[in-house]
Amino acid sequence: MIHAPRITRARERMAAVGVDVLLLSVGPDLPYLTGYEAMPLERLTMLVLPVEGEARLVVPGLEAPRVDNREQLFEIAAWEETDDPIAVVAGLVSASARRIAIGDHTWARFVLDLQRALPERAFVRATDVVSPLRIVKDADEIAALTRAAHAVDGIAADMRAVRFSGRSELDVHRELVDRMLAAGHDRANFAIVAAGANAASPHHEPSAERLIADGELVLCDFGGTMAGYCSDITRMFHVGEPSEEVAGVYAVLAAAQEAGVQAATVGARCEDVDAASRRVIADAGFGDYFVHRVGHGIGTEAHEDPYLVAGNALALEAGHAFSVEPGIYLPDRFGMRLEDIVVARADGPERLNVAPRDIAIVA
Amino acid sequence: MIHAPRITRARERMAAVGVDVLLLSVGPDLPYLTGYEAMPLERLTMLVLPVEGEARLVVPGLEAPRVDNREQLFEIAAWEETDDPIAVVAGLVSASARRIAIGDHTWARFVLDLQRALPERAFVRATDVVSPLRIVKDADEIAALTRAAHAVDGIAADMRAVRFSGRSELDVHRELVDRMLAAGHDRANFAIVAAGANAASPHHEPSAERLIADGELVLCDFGGTMAGYCSDITRMFHVGEPSEEVAGVYAVLAAAQEAGVQAATVGARCEDVDAASRRVIADAGFGDYFVHRVGHGIGTEAHEDPYLVAGNALALEAGHAFSVEPGIYLPDRFGMRLEDIVVARADGPERLNVAPRDIAIVA
Repeated sequence: MIHAPRITRARERMAAVGVDVLLLSVGPDLPYLTGYEAMPLERLTMLVLPVEGEARLVVPGLEAPRVDNREQLFEIAAWEETDDPIAVVAGLVSASARRIAIGDHTWARFVLDLQRALPERAFVRATDVVSPLRIVKDADEIAALTRAAHAVDGIAADMRAVRFSGRSELDVHRELVDRMLAAGHDRANFAIVAAGANAASPHHEPSAERLIADGELVLCDFGGTMAGYCSDITRMFHVGEPSEEVAGVYAVLAAAQEAGVQAATVGARCEDVDAASRRVIADAGFGDYFVHRVGHGIGTEAHEDPYLVAGNALALEAGHAFSVEPGIYLPDRFGMRLEDIVVARADGPERLNVAPRDIAIVA
Repeated sequence: MIHAPRITRARERMAAVGVDVLLLSVGPDLPYLTGYEAMPLERLTMLVLPVEGEARLVVPGLEAPRVDNREQLFEIAAWEETDDPIAVVAGLVSASARRIAIGDHTWARFVLDLQRALPERAFVRATDVVSPLRIVKDADEIAALTRAAHAVDGIAADMRAVRFSGRSELDVHRELVDRMLAAGHDRANFAIVAAGANAASPHHEPSAERLIADGELVLCDFGGTMAGYCSDITRMFHVGEPSEEVAGVYAVLAAAQEAGVQAATVGARCEDVDAASRRVIADAGFGDYFVHRVGHGIGTEAHEDPYLVAGNALALEAGHAFSVEPGIYLPDRFGMRLEDIVVARADGPERLNVAPRDIAIVA
């Protein structure tokens, strides 16, 4: 029931931006528009959606039974093992189509093959068609993001009672993954666990060798997908009482995160949210140690539009959902980040995550 | 130690096929050549490997600490959050480079952006450079594939003592996933569990609602990645004694699989292996019900070259590794497949999987 109106809006957008046909394969756009997710394998699945006329889903014959076609969104064009699926797709693109938008995650091999099969056409990014739809979450989508957020909130809260000392980063990582699955996530997308100086690398990979020691600060940044929508939260843990220095830097970080959240009002530019958070950190003298943008959109993808980064003048609209996650990374010493998912609402920013935001003191 | 010689061979291949620069991002080619795997996110990671001269890894600044550069394979070109990584990559491609090979799994958005940033260049598939290297497994790679195969062999054998009746397909699926992780796999890539008529769809998705009943045939096709190399096995289970009909069809399938394996000798064409297996099934009258190719290559990817399919005249070489997995799918009734991983050796085909190949009778 949700997909037919989405396809209608995609077609309106295609007409507005001058796209004659949309080609979608692996990645989040196809399930967003149709409910069907392509298998990320070498056999091509591709929706051929013309701005007018019938849509077709080109799909490997042996996967055709997976396609549930209840909504009558498209006809199925199954190809057999010795067929050339590129030729099948090209044959479904009308001769008059000049401008073709292709899904962002489509494999390069298929892009190049299609360009050869459809010469003299302009290929553009499908994100220009689909992102303006996906970026505004409706009430059901916000409810799904909220359920996913509350699931990881529960984990973040429960981890406050868990022992960290003496365990490897990888061991804690595995616990986070297990807990996400147990809490109803379909899959865990990531679970960064970084102890001490390792947390000064924002995308540190948890190590089996690195044991967490007494007196260490530990960053846990984890998220997954639950009923199609993503969670993403970062909380800090400290084995024993943190030093005055750590507590002081964390107070700066928490204030910066709060400033970012409060700046995320409808009409604010994405770059303004980044700047609001960054200013607090810079004013405290740590500006050189906040080395990434303040946030990213979230929905069916863990990272999607809107990106809250300097240079992005896009204005926030009601229904935009995104992380606000400033960090302070002191090389060879420690690192910290604090992250909530926030939705821009007409009456102000709303945090979806409700887990305690202070440093958790753990054993 | 293994990567520098691989890069040398990639460059030899580039010179042979007239590629001036190789651009690799997400997907298996980059870790194969360098040991580093790009994060599959919107921040671009890309190796720029010219046929001569210094290689650079363009990488997001916050991921630069993840890059282990011991082998001196490349210089790191880190980009900051407000930089344009496409411009960074384009700036590293020499003005004289005419032919650019781009990694097969690179996202379409980056392909299109690079084509715009590097006009008048020919973009071709990196598979033409890297696949001829990856397709021939060395002794260490075959050892890794063998370890992964034996891990799933153990699971297939243990599952013969497990109860199937009354459980959902999804429940058995989860057990297979858990067992793969417990057996040393880094991740489970898939675990198809299909009961009764569901198995007539070769890529059936396991259902939480579909309970396995007495007297049913159940297909289990599962695999994952262990120390970088993939496993993939299919075995059949039957709740109670199979009927004469099922046993008879299975005897055809087993003979077809054996014929395929025996045909996989060095020098045989890929399509000949498919034909050898298919002939047995067709001669028994089930030709219309074997609806897919007989096999696919396997290595760091679950599916890779060589594909054993009609029309592929590539001759097998020593060190090629692939599945041999014929199937017979009777719509609305039942389906079956039997799959082993096989390596072509100078002295004949070698099955890596050793789990029993008969139908397992389970409770």
